[in-house]
Amino acid sequence: MAYFRLGISDMALNRFQEFLWGLIAPLRRRKGERLLLDEALQTLMGSRGEVSTAVAAREVLDSYQEAADEDKLVFFRNLEQNFNADFETVKSAWQAYEEEPSGANLSRLSRDAEPRRLALLRRLHQTPNATHDLVAMRADLLELLPRRPELETLDREFEQMFSTWFGRDFLVLREIDWSTSAAILERIIRYEAVHEILDWKDLRSRIEPANRCCFAFFHPSLADEPLIFVEVALTMGIPSGIGEILDNEAGAGADFTTAVFYSISNCQPGLKRISFGNFLIKQVVLELQAAHPSIETFVTLSPVPGFGRWLESDADDDEENAQDAALFNLKRECREWLQRPEPAAENAELLRRTVFNFLLRKRRGMYPEDPVARFHLGNGASLHRVITGADLSENGWRQSRGVMVNYLYDQTRIETNHEHYIGEGKVQFNDRLKALQLRT
Amino acid sequence: MAYFRLGISDMALNRFQEFLWGLIAPLRRRKGERLLLDEALQTLMGSRGEVSTAVAAREVLDSYQEAADEDKLVFFRNLEQNFNADFETVKSAWQAYEEEPSGANLSRLSRDAEPRRLALLRRLHQTPNATHDLVAMRADLLELLPRRPELETLDREFEQMFSTWFGRDFLVLREIDWSTSAAILERIIRYEAVHEILDWKDLRSRIEPANRCCFAFFHPSLADEPLIFVEVALTMGIPSGIGEILDNEAGAGADFTTAVFYSISNCQPGLKRISFGNFLIKQVVLELQAAHPSIETFVTLSPVPGFGRWLESDADDDEENAQDAALFNLKRECREWLQRPEPAAENAELLRRTVFNFLLRKRRGMYPEDPVARFHLGNGASLHRVITGADLSENGWRQSRGVMVNYLYDQTRIETNHEHYIGEGKVQFNDRLKALQLRT
Amino acid sequence: MAYFRLGISDMALNRFQEFLWGLIAPLRRRKGERLLLDEALQTLMGSRGEVSTAVAAREVLDSYQEAADEDKLVFFRNLEQNFNADFETVKSAWQAYEEEPSGANLSRLSRDAEPRRLALLRRLHQTPNATHDLVAMRADLLELLPRRPELETLDREFEQMFSTWFGRDFLVLREIDWSTSAAILERIIRYEAVHEILDWKDLRSRIEPANRCCFAFFHPSLADEPLIFVEVALTMGIPSGIGEILDNEAGAGADFTTAVFYSISNCQPGLKRISFGNFLIKQVVLELQAAHPSIETFVTLSPVPGFGRWLESDADDDEENAQDAALFNLKRECREWLQRPEPAAENAELLRRTVFNFLLRKRRGMYPEDPVARFHLGNGASLHRVITGADLSENGWRQSRGVMVNYLYDQTRIETNHEHYIGEGKVQFNDRLKALQLRT
Amino acid sequence: MAYFRLGISDMALNRFQEFLWGLIAPLRRRKGERLLLDEALQTLMGSRGEVSTAVAAREVLDSYQEAADEDKLVFFRNLEQNFNADFETVKSAWQAYEEEPSGANLSRLSRDAEPRRLALLRRLHQTPNATHDLVAMRADLLELLPRRPELETLDREFEQMFSTWFGRDFLVLREIDWSTSAAILERIIRYEAVHEILDWKDLRSRIEPANRCCFAFFHPSLADEPLIFVEVALTMGIPSGIGEILDNEAGAGADFTTAVFYSISNCQPGLKRISFGNFLIKQVVLELQAAHPSIETFVTLSPVPGFGRWLESDADDDEENAQDAALFNLKRECREWLQRPEPAAENAELLRRTVFNFLLRKRRGMYPEDPVARFHLGNGASLHRVITGADLSENGWRQSRGVMVNYLYDQTRIETNHEHYIGEGKVQFNDRLKALQLRT
Repeated sequence: MAYFRLGISDMALNRFQEFLWGLIAPLRRRKGERLLLDEALQTLMGSRGEVSTAVAAREVLDSYQEAADEDKLVFFRNLEQNFNADFETVKSAWQAYEEEPSGANLSRLSRDAEPRRLALLRRLHQTPNATHDLVAMRADLLELLPRRPELETLDREFEQMFSTWFGRDFLVLREIDWSTSAAILERIIRYEAVHEILDWKDLRSRIEPANRCCFAFFHPSLADEPLIFVEVALTMGIPSGIGEILDNEAGAGADFTTAVFYSISNCQPGLKRISFGNFLIKQVVLELQAAHPSIETFVTLSPVPGFGRWLESDADDDEENAQDAALFNLKRECREWLQRPEPAAENAELLRRTVFNFLLRKRRGMYPEDPVARFHLGNGASLHRVITGADLSENGWRQSRGVMVNYLYDQTRIETNHEHYIGEGKVQFNDRLKALQLRT
Repeated sequence: MAYFRLGISDMALNRFQEFLWGLIAPLRRRKGERLLLDEALQTLMGSRGEVSTAVAAREVLDSYQEAADEDKLVFFRNLEQNFNADFETVKSAWQAYEEEPSGANLSRLSRDAEPRRLALLRRLHQTPNATHDLVAMRADLLELLPRRPELETLDREFEQMFSTWFGRDFLVLREIDWSTSAAILERIIRYEAVHEILDWKDLRSRIEPANRCCFAFFHPSLADEPLIFVEVALTMGIPSGIGEILDNEAGAGADFTTAVFYSISNCQPGLKRISFGNFLIKQVVLELQAAHPSIETFVTLSPVPGFGRWLESDADDDEENAQDAALFNLKRECREWLQRPEPAAENAELLRRTVFNFLLRKRRGMYPEDPVARFHLGNGASLHRVITGADLSENGWRQSRGVMVNYLYDQTRIETNHEHYIGEGKVQFNDRLKALQLRT
Repeated sequence: MAYFRLGISDMALNRFQEFLWGLIAPLRRRKGERLLLDEALQTLMGSRGEVSTAVAAREVLDSYQEAADEDKLVFFRNLEQNFNADFETVKSAWQAYEEEPSGANLSRLSRDAEPRRLALLRRLHQTPNATHDLVAMRADLLELLPRRPELETLDREFEQMFSTWFGRDFLVLREIDWSTSAAILERIIRYEAVHEILDWKDLRSRIEPANRCCFAFFHPSLADEPLIFVEVALTMGIPSGIGEILDNEAGAGADFTTAVFYSISNCQPGLKRISFGNFLIKQVVLELQAAHPSIETFVTLSPVPGFGRWLESDADDDEENAQDAALFNLKRECREWLQRPEPAAENAELLRRTVFNFLLRKRRGMYPEDPVARFHLGNGASLHRVITGADLSENGWRQSRGVMVNYLYDQTRIETNHEHYIGEGKVQFNDRLKALQLRT
Repeated sequence: MAYFRLGISDMALNRFQEFLWGLIAPLRRRKGERLLLDEALQTLMGSRGEVSTAVAAREVLDSYQEAADEDKLVFFRNLEQNFNADFETVKSAWQAYEEEPSGANLSRLSRDAEPRRLALLRRLHQTPNATHDLVAMRADLLELLPRRPELETLDREFEQMFSTWFGRDFLVLREIDWSTSAAILERIIRYEAVHEILDWKDLRSRIEPANRCCFAFFHPSLADEPLIFVEVALTMGIPSGIGEILDNEAGAGADFTTAVFYSISNCQPGLKRISFGNFLIKQVVLELQAAHPSIETFVTLSPVPGFGRWLESDADDDEENAQDAALFNLKRECREWLQRPEPAAENAELLRRTVFNFLLRKRRGMYPEDPVARFHLGNGASLHRVITGADLSENGWRQSRGVMVNYLYDQTRIETNHEHYIGEGKVQFNDRLKALQLRT
């Protein structure tokens, strides 16, 4: 899409890369082979002049891409061990600061104590397409991390740099519809993480009808790559389950009253902890209000993925019992009822009550344990409805025992909610849910 | 131009800002008035959650814009004095690092020693249009700097942040022509710093004819704002003066042999020391090669702004004489000749010789004193020709005594030149200039 | 603007024309010279195959462009005299139709009686850029017409063809603002026919402020050429003169109540009698209603160009007196009053009364004589206000004695007005104007 | 894609249609129902003023779309019978012309004899989206035609009008690739008529790899609707069968020598006999030459769909034998050989010979009977190669007994070939095919 073909055209980009390649060639020992990563790194850190830097940066990124997995690990370790700072330089900067803790001396200390990894990342960024390649590099790093905890420092520095490159002012909101390029749509299919998109026909049913829409954030340097997207159904009332949305025929462009955010997916593993979701939902609310003034209710239709895990686990039973016996008893009761061959429907209320109190009372630190709840409540939404039998897919049963939850985005209360939640961990909920609340 | 309507449309942007404004309102003491900058800053640094941050960032930026000059100074001083770091925290991070200088401990020290100013800049960036407003803020700061050297530390931190936000991968090259939007063209007129553009007709004569072109770098977050641009004339040979270019009628789209870069202008005072020029010229060379394969020579037609200053100054005469007596004598001879009522034309050679040796021998540190020479030689260009009577405008006489210089961009030698220049300060020049060189 | 770079890019277009040119070359007698128009025409009418036609069409259009004025006249005469039909063929088609007036026989007669000029125009259209060149050709023809009435038939056929090529479904509405390309804006300056645009600064004051806008129709084949445009001022009430609009400082984006169409200009002389204005105004009303729901009044601020002419002329005095003595007396009275050295202001009412009754009663056939009145009343607008001293420029005085008129576009009455006007010539006007109406 | 959002945006279009609808409403007898087609037609033909026409045109088009099949037939018959001309008017125009056969009188006769159907089509075109609706209307008409030959006259008039609306100057060439909108790509899948596209994956393999491309013509008023498209494979030599192209893995962006046009599909049944193919192929040749200077050979890989039909038919055996006994004998021999259980491969030469001579000698009028041959030879291509076993799909066997043919587009010979073919029906072929030629 021309929209994103910002800047140098593909053709010019190729020319630019060929040009860079031509410049690096004399540095190579053997024709047709890339520099070893080490050499490329040394060249990059020693480069003076902008063009040499661009050349060497491209060389490092290309060499990295072609490297074997074990060489990538060596590369990361190299960064971790050898791109720190010179102890003596840091020491003398500290001493100056200790003697006179002025702004200038702090600045000097800050610069001298900055790990050379960060300077390296900045240098790597001085070449076209670098953002894309570095996001991919961090995705590799994050995969290694569980087995290589020593690389965590390095990952923190990636995160620090990315939070700068992906500041809110650089993000671009775009509507995704049937006139969007196939290159982007193909990624929407691939990245949908909540309710799988089966094929192009399924995709079309989610973005083309007048009562369905989809919005994504993009970054100018990642042309065809959505960062995060949200799928929305426009309805005449809050639906009582995801089936109504996924199976429903397209409704005519009637006077919708409700926008249901039923799926929100992050697309870039390499951008972990760089969060865009808060802004996305809030900006989409504004877009929808402008386009459909009749819409007054903005809710999610969300799973409760923490519920299944919690219900099944019994490792911490004693501790749980000690902390919150009422909740613990409810959990046990619910678990038993669910294990019956045919749990009597009239008792679905038990499930609702358990989920509601789980969301309210089961905490990790100050905030609810369920990650989806943390996301929306942290955004200033409130807990609006708990619906049983709302997602009877295999996945829906496993994660949430078929329960889904509406979180309500009420523009007039969003900031107050947000403050009470952040400050006191207070979860706002609809009065009608009060009856479900455990007394103790 | 749709091209730049990147991201949220103007209308959506307005909605978004109204929304942010609505959120900040409860914080205000008096309706209709902005928060004082202090309060806004405190709110921003205390904000939790992305939306609160965006709100408070917008508040700070708007309050700043409306502040009186003296309040802006107070604001900068506040940043300088009160946004440093907590001494005890830095100290204990230092102690940990001193004890075990590991990567993780260095990282911790680096984070703890980072002046809070940088975190503040990152937070300010979390709101639409922030890049634009912060570039303007630094322009203010740079104007204050000569009288307020204590703010230099703060400026360094702005520079550090901007070098990240304006990395090469974020820059976008665009051709400027008669189909470009008036909003951009109006800025080209305003920012042209070398050969003034008189009016829209003059502008048109520089961008519309088949033998004239113009290229600029843009940044996605500064939609209609060029960062730097270069004007190019396509010719059948190297012209012997700027008049040929500025006055000349448009030539037919013949088989050009030469591209003359006759003007390069930085547009954003707030981006001082964030340099784009190297890349711009080199990428434009690539674009022109692709579009006009017949062009084989890429030269500048440049003033020598350091020459006039040097010729006039006599403060350092003794020192100069001691350092380079041959050059000093040449300078004196030239000065006398120029002061005659009608300097004999046959002696124009004396002027050429003086300029050439000035460029070659008068150094600031390792590199030539003349800033334009430093720029192009640092890019890997070589000194190709020295032309007298090439710019007889008042400005041209004052700056360079009418002399202009061609710097040659020869793709096959650019990298070698660059290395010799950077490493040894060596100035490459055309063999035909050899005769002008002082022997001693 | 990419928007209009529809279709083959400039570069591809050049290649395509070179290709066409290569094909025509063998037909030429002397290298380097164009075919004479005659030969080119013959080649075109004899061409078979689409490519030969495109080649020959391009050749005719290029030869025409380079022809001298007298050769263009010869060319038009040639079309008029030698591109009719074969009498015998028409005759036998007539005889078949006379015998059996079926649809098929009529079709045959229609085809056989079609002047070959029309087929020629269709063939000329089979080459890139033909629309542009043919519109220019008709502009030449229209200039010749007053002295060459024999070419009127030919002009009617141009008109017939253009009314097909410029059908409503091919027109494209675009807003003109400060982000529009200079190539288009430069034409807006050039084509403004009502209130001259002095320079780019003046233009900017008409399109950039939040209370000014401009819309134009374009045709996909005339990329940067507006066909017609209208300038609009958004105000808080109906202004009492054009000065308020042209001189006024930009107002803040307040809650406008009124949109004033103060200038509408046709841009293409070659499209005479192909009218776009009706649609333009009505569609702009819709756009403005959508963008500014607070606007409830849509009026023009129009000159009365027929009034000055009528007031001055005395050729038909006797006839006028006989037809409408009351109006004639009013005209005389007004004329005298205006000739006094200082016409007493209190009597401005006389001028208003004369203009109002001129608009109402002075007719050409069934409809008012004043062309601007005919345009807006024919659109379904009503006469809303007559304002003296509303345009005191030299032109405003000469044309309309300083008077301007508001025509009101009231969406709820537009169709009824239109029907009464078209059917009975009835001019709707505001009740408050009733007092000005001549009784007899 | 913004590219095609030409003109009034969807939203504005909706507003415009609502506005039109509001105007038509008073004409309706019963609320909520469309006018009968008859009434709508009468309103349209009686409308005065542009807006009334647009309203009524939209009403006719909408009523038509919602009409039942039998009502559509009634509508077409109505046009055929009642939209002719007034006999007496035609007669008096004829008499004037007969008396003085001047250009003006011919023009008058031509206008008076024009069936009112054409005026009707022009009026219908005066409303947004009319082109689209009228193309669909003609598609309906063409389906009726075989059973309703009396409607042929009407169809001729549609064709006449469309040839004007789809003149070459209005067509827009666009490359189709993976960044094209899904709305367009979905139609490419649907309209591919030569080698079926199975799904989106298959489509991607034809448009994304560096050695595959696709180009289409569009019309500005049919935004997302391709008119015709061609699929091209870039190769290192002429492939010996379609399998090599359809199955082949994407080759690296090597130095291609050959462009193979392996599929060309018309998309709009309603545009039958409005041909675009000639131009498409020739313009694509130019685009490819510019983008890939290494390509020197431009060939098709085409089926011979007339061959299967001819081989099977024996209705005209006697006649064929009489006309061209040599060819007839060859056909019989080939037929027998193909009917053997396992036709010996060594004899594939017989098949090649039969196809070659079929293409050369079996004529309909002056030109070859095979429609694909007629298309490419009429374009100026020559017969380059006849390949057996080149398409072993079921369809390929049925149509062409597995044979495919290369037609060569040689820019230096295209015009000469074209002239000899058009003038004398001469088929140019490669010398190496000479051995296959029947002597008699």
